Amino acid sequence: MARQSLQPSRDPADYPFAHRLRTRFAETDAMGIIHHAAYLAYLEEARVEYLRAIGHPYHAVRAGDGEDRAAGGRDFAVLEVSVQFRKPLHFDDEVDVSLRIGAVTGTTFQVAYLLSAGGEARATAVTVHGCVDGRGRPARLPAWVAEEFGAA
Amino acid sequence: MARQSLQPSRDPADYPFAHRLRTRFAETDAMGIIHHAAYLAYLEEARVEYLRAIGHPYHAVRAGDGEDRAAGGRDFAVLEVSVQFRKPLHFDDEVDVSLRIGAVTGTTFQVAYLLSAGGEARATAVTVHGCVDGRGRPARLPAWVAEEFGAA
Amino acid sequence: MARQSLQPSRDPADYPFAHRLRTRFAETDAMGIIHHAAYLAYLEEARVEYLRAIGHPYHAVRAGDGEDRAAGGRDFAVLEVSVQFRKPLHFDDEVDVSLRIGAVTGTTFQVAYLLSAGGEARATAVTVHGCVDGRGRPARLPAWVAEEFGAA
Amino acid sequence: MARQSLQPSRDPADYPFAHRLRTRFAETDAMGIIHHAAYLAYLEEARVEYLRAIGHPYHAVRAGDGEDRAAGGRDFAVLEVSVQFRKPLHFDDEVDVSLRIGAVTGTTFQVAYLLSAGGEARATAVTVHGCVDGRGRPARLPAWVAEEFGAA
Repeated sequence: MARQSLQPSRDPADYPFAHRLRTRFAETDAMGIIHHAAYLAYLEEARVEYLRAIGHPYHAVRAGDGEDRAAGGRDFAVLEVSVQFRKPLHFDDEVDVSLRIGAVTGTTFQVAYLLSAGGEARATAVTVHGCVDGRGRPARLPAWVAEEFGAA
Repeated sequence: MARQSLQPSRDPADYPFAHRLRTRFAETDAMGIIHHAAYLAYLEEARVEYLRAIGHPYHAVRAGDGEDRAAGGRDFAVLEVSVQFRKPLHFDDEVDVSLRIGAVTGTTFQVAYLLSAGGEARATAVTVHGCVDGRGRPARLPAWVAEEFGAA
Repeated sequence: MARQSLQPSRDPADYPFAHRLRTRFAETDAMGIIHHAAYLAYLEEARVEYLRAIGHPYHAVRAGDGEDRAAGGRDFAVLEVSVQFRKPLHFDDEVDVSLRIGAVTGTTFQVAYLLSAGGEARATAVTVHGCVDGRGRPARLPAWVAEEFGAA
Repeated sequence: MARQSLQPSRDPADYPFAHRLRTRFAETDAMGIIHHAAYLAYLEEARVEYLRAIGHPYHAVRAGDGEDRAAGGRDFAVLEVSVQFRKPLHFDDEVDVSLRIGAVTGTTFQVAYLLSAGGEARATAVTVHGCVDGRGRPARLPAWVAEEFGAA
């Protein structure tokens, strides 16, 4: 299995993309902070917005649209996730989720993240993704991934 | 659209089935109580356990197993939900979700619920369900639903 | 207990406020649609944005800021929720959550909602809220609620 | 910040405790599998059951009950989480979440997890926890943690 190799920086300038979102009350817990599981949805939302920003919206990836139609739909399954919680988030915080792609292979890629709010790093994270077809079987990444991010 | 017609009683004796679950910390919110959205997952978990108890596990309904194989898989889509929150639930509470089926038609049925903890009614609810096929189109309910619960 | 009395219209023009959000992949389910429990978070997010838009952000209400400082923090606990699911939402849909306040009493108010996407009504909903203090005890609504929305 | 040092084994026999739970339909996603964020709630539920099993239920830890009353309430905040997803879980799967505690210091401890279903390893995970007081400030772990698990 792929193992995470990216080291997420705490400097927003090290990331080519950032997505701003606002925490929800539903995501708080009885400690009065954002529950740690909600961060995984934030990472996912930022990945989705990044794919849209580079012209490959995830719903099109899943449908097999565009240049990859011949290959059929693809999912970028999560193989691994790691989050370091540095400082809590609270209800109604505006959070910038910065990300960059790295460690691209023929079938996997990794994403490093920095979550910041109020100018402070709140969390860093890495996700490892594997390309799968519509039935969940491992598949080669669409050609544009290698073109866009390079492949090892 | 079907409209809810069941009146959920606050007496557990009025329900033929009850499922006990325990609230999760992840389901609390910054008010220190269980967030209201978590109740919908509790209702769903109780429906799933009820179907299992009567010999029609929901995964088999969805796969089109058993006597309904010819008809193909079915989902019981949620058409409507209504919850009255009477007294809060807290982290680690043991909750009895009592339920009964009613108002069965050829394509829809309703479920009334009582959520109780510590011998007190905490919430009542009604869900209205419509049978759909694997592509989300309205479909007739499996024959066992009418047999088990009667049809109007 | 307060009972919902508002009738949510399916015409966006009947609502004074709308908040646009985008569904998340984490909110989908194995039927390939947005799980019904996610709608409650959408309603809540729209309420929070509405309170911000009228100058009473919910984090300030909870902290007891502004004119209501003397009264201490307040929460608008959810006493009742009812949703009618008319047509499914899918991953990455942009959803307009329209809302209007009504049925204001000294301690409760109601909110009617229309969720629309692609120019179509997808769901309508009503929530009933009761004002509580920091310990969860019923309390009078802040004065601005009656001023803003009228009281019965 | 504490960094995870435990290596979670894929052999259930390496863990002193296991908690069985069942996946919910609400936790599935449009890939037809359990969404990866749901695993964090499974880990948490298993931790809570483990604390109950050893006589220190988490609600008592949070309330500052028992021998630690003088110290006041404590939370075991999540400082870090890492999950490796080896094989998907599906709706209605029965999952055994095995866990063991390790790497205990004066203020932090780690937990290693194995999630298995149908006799197969589905995921492994590590969480790192820091003891905090009722206001979220770092605090010493209750004495029973060191006694029970040893401290470095």
